[in-house]
Amino acid sequence: MAARGPFKTPPPSLPPHPAGAQGEAAEPPSSAADAPHGLGASRRSVIPAFEVMQITGEVERRRAEGRDIVSLCAGEPSARPAPGMLKPAGYTSPLGTAPLREAIAGHYANWYGVSIDPARVAVTTGSSGAFQLVFLAAFDPGDRVALASPGYPAYRNILRSLGVDVIEIPTGSETRYQPTPALLDAAVEAHGPLAGLIVASPANPTGSMLSRAELSALVEWCAEQRVRLISDEIYHGITYAEAGGPDARGVSAVELDPEAIAINSFSKYWGMTGWRLGWAVLPESLIAPMEALASNFALSPPAPAQELALGAFSEERYAERDAVVAGFARARALILDAEPALRWGESAPSDGAFYFYADLGPQLERFGDSLGYARALLDGADVAVVPGVDFDPMHGTRTVRLSYAAGEAAVEEALSRILRFQAPGG
Amino acid sequence: MAARGPFKTPPPSLPPHPAGAQGEAAEPPSSAADAPHGLGASRRSVIPAFEVMQITGEVERRRAEGRDIVSLCAGEPSARPAPGMLKPAGYTSPLGTAPLREAIAGHYANWYGVSIDPARVAVTTGSSGAFQLVFLAAFDPGDRVALASPGYPAYRNILRSLGVDVIEIPTGSETRYQPTPALLDAAVEAHGPLAGLIVASPANPTGSMLSRAELSALVEWCAEQRVRLISDEIYHGITYAEAGGPDARGVSAVELDPEAIAINSFSKYWGMTGWRLGWAVLPESLIAPMEALASNFALSPPAPAQELALGAFSEERYAERDAVVAGFARARALILDAEPALRWGESAPSDGAFYFYADLGPQLERFGDSLGYARALLDGADVAVVPGVDFDPMHGTRTVRLSYAAGEAAVEEALSRILRFQAPGG
Repeated sequence: MAARGPFKTPPPSLPPHPAGAQGEAAEPPSSAADAPHGLGASRRSVIPAFEVMQITGEVERRRAEGRDIVSLCAGEPSARPAPGMLKPAGYTSPLGTAPLREAIAGHYANWYGVSIDPARVAVTTGSSGAFQLVFLAAFDPGDRVALASPGYPAYRNILRSLGVDVIEIPTGSETRYQPTPALLDAAVEAHGPLAGLIVASPANPTGSMLSRAELSALVEWCAEQRVRLISDEIYHGITYAEAGGPDARGVSAVELDPEAIAINSFSKYWGMTGWRLGWAVLPESLIAPMEALASNFALSPPAPAQELALGAFSEERYAERDAVVAGFARARALILDAEPALRWGESAPSDGAFYFYADLGPQLERFGDSLGYARALLDGADVAVVPGVDFDPMHGTRTVRLSYAAGEAAVEEALSRILRFQAPGG
Repeated sequence: MAARGPFKTPPPSLPPHPAGAQGEAAEPPSSAADAPHGLGASRRSVIPAFEVMQITGEVERRRAEGRDIVSLCAGEPSARPAPGMLKPAGYTSPLGTAPLREAIAGHYANWYGVSIDPARVAVTTGSSGAFQLVFLAAFDPGDRVALASPGYPAYRNILRSLGVDVIEIPTGSETRYQPTPALLDAAVEAHGPLAGLIVASPANPTGSMLSRAELSALVEWCAEQRVRLISDEIYHGITYAEAGGPDARGVSAVELDPEAIAINSFSKYWGMTGWRLGWAVLPESLIAPMEALASNFALSPPAPAQELALGAFSEERYAERDAVVAGFARARALILDAEPALRWGESAPSDGAFYFYADLGPQLERFGDSLGYARALLDGADVAVVPGVDFDPMHGTRTVRLSYAAGEAAVEEALSRILRFQAPGG
């Protein structure tokens, strides 16, 4: 790995394919040796950081020391507000502003009681930006990465576009729709050693959560097998266990192992979807590779969103968001109460997030599959639900996902329409 | 290519590697047959669109028809402003809002006199977001893509991380630092057939521009050789030819060929760097692949930035930005006037953008290389410039890039410090 400081640039004549992306032999990154599990960065993440962004950082440091630096570095017009803009918004550091990285580290102390070096926090363009950069940093083409099915489809689609071999772990009610060490052993048996595992708790589309013991078992399995664990925690805080109880917000993988990667977002608990802001907590060995990737793939996360997010971690803001979650809880209760009347099949444990995921059961006899059901429901009752095929390539033709993020009133109206629609002759 | 409308989902049992990303045989996308040059989408872009985002679009269409749809689809809390936020900002369509796509198409009519279907406009998270998605959509691992050296380093670094074989075309003053058909013929001779060519006009770091005749020659060469042309036009409008003269804003590749891809940004001419908003104008055959990739890799571009950008195309805003460009022109004139006194070597034609790129010439005897010069200048005179190694792996040890985006006063002060610093005993 080339040193990252300004003027400590890689040799002027770069080899033609430093990333070894064409399958050529490439030196393993030196960071591999330093990582406790021997897990280093991908070969393809060994690209130079964009030096301009590094020098810009050095300029900021010297200015902070009081020096009068004239910078002819950045390809950025002097920041100033244009009409309609509140204030100037220029590029930030590729991994986000220092105050926001510190504030996020503080959130981990507050919610999880774990101390995180702000340097390990990478602010990204939504959790989507974190997933793509982390997948690039951690995996090379041909690597095998396991994930639960049903699951969030973008994991699998991004990984495939990046040449990573996706190993789907079919899950059901017997493991609460989550992977287990036994299921992972079976996957290794069937497909060969894994490079990575992606877990989500609360999960999309099921809402199912991993307990501390269950997540710990997966963390241990990954450490033993030298598998990179990526934990999607974007629904943390949107949970329905007793408030203030142990692990009520969710358990973060980085509480259990500094080699795990936690990915989170301002979109769900904080409701900032359209602002596109998220983050990853990285192991030490991936900080420099992520910075190199981010400085080339993204330059920086959105600056106005970063400024706004600085206010996300006050007690007032937590209380406000918890009130929103209480509304989700009331909408969720409406669905769980209506479940017998719906006459559907088995549903997943809706522990968190704002999803109810269920097999359509007897309704499949009338509508054929979940696509037919969803189409008929939209055409006949003006209610939109998502058929499970997005989330489960194997069994999604039997399932639907209801999001109750729309709130109590919408859910009440939808349930009443669904029941009328399903009634004989409805 | 699977149909994209809601409920026209791909078959429930997806093959394990639909993208053929592991080098397996994969059917070429059907779009290939439709494209005039036979240029289709990459195999790896054949991933399912995220169905939820598609159904959300269908819900919007039905609501626009006046139907009272209850949606339990999107994993998004009801949009409402949080404290400190001006207004709600939810996800938008993966390729951007319809009004912004229409406004951008209008900009092409206004500046270039070319009619662009708004469906061909893909709004992205900065031009960075456009580059990564276009590279994924257009190229597969092992494809060869040519670009000029010196050039913007992120092209090469993103391509390499995605497994694409980068062919550097060394350029100099004899071709005004731009590729030519003859240079491309030589590259094919040396390396084999190309899948793509990236051009930039005005270019970074040189500022050099392609005339209409030069760009046309490259467009024709690409059409004959069935090579995908990607034209980086993010510095259009920041040009120093006579205002109102022919092609004074720059020539867009999509004026010349609907199969070319133009990439642009709100960062440079409009000065919205930190908002992270850009766009691509796509050939018909890449619209669906880009939508599938964007819906998985990004979900949507930043919503507040999209709303702000709606105001970018008024006559008042063009006039305001042109006044900013006039300031760049004055800063540029200071550097060009000082060039003899600087006693550097050959400089590139600074036709546009806000860059001056030059060989350090005689200064190299004293400072060794451009890294040594830049380090000594920052340490000794508090002036930051960028050594050319970012932009030119071969000759960048001899060159530096000055950005005059900082404006007249900064440039004047920097030049005076540089001249003192370079003076004997300075």
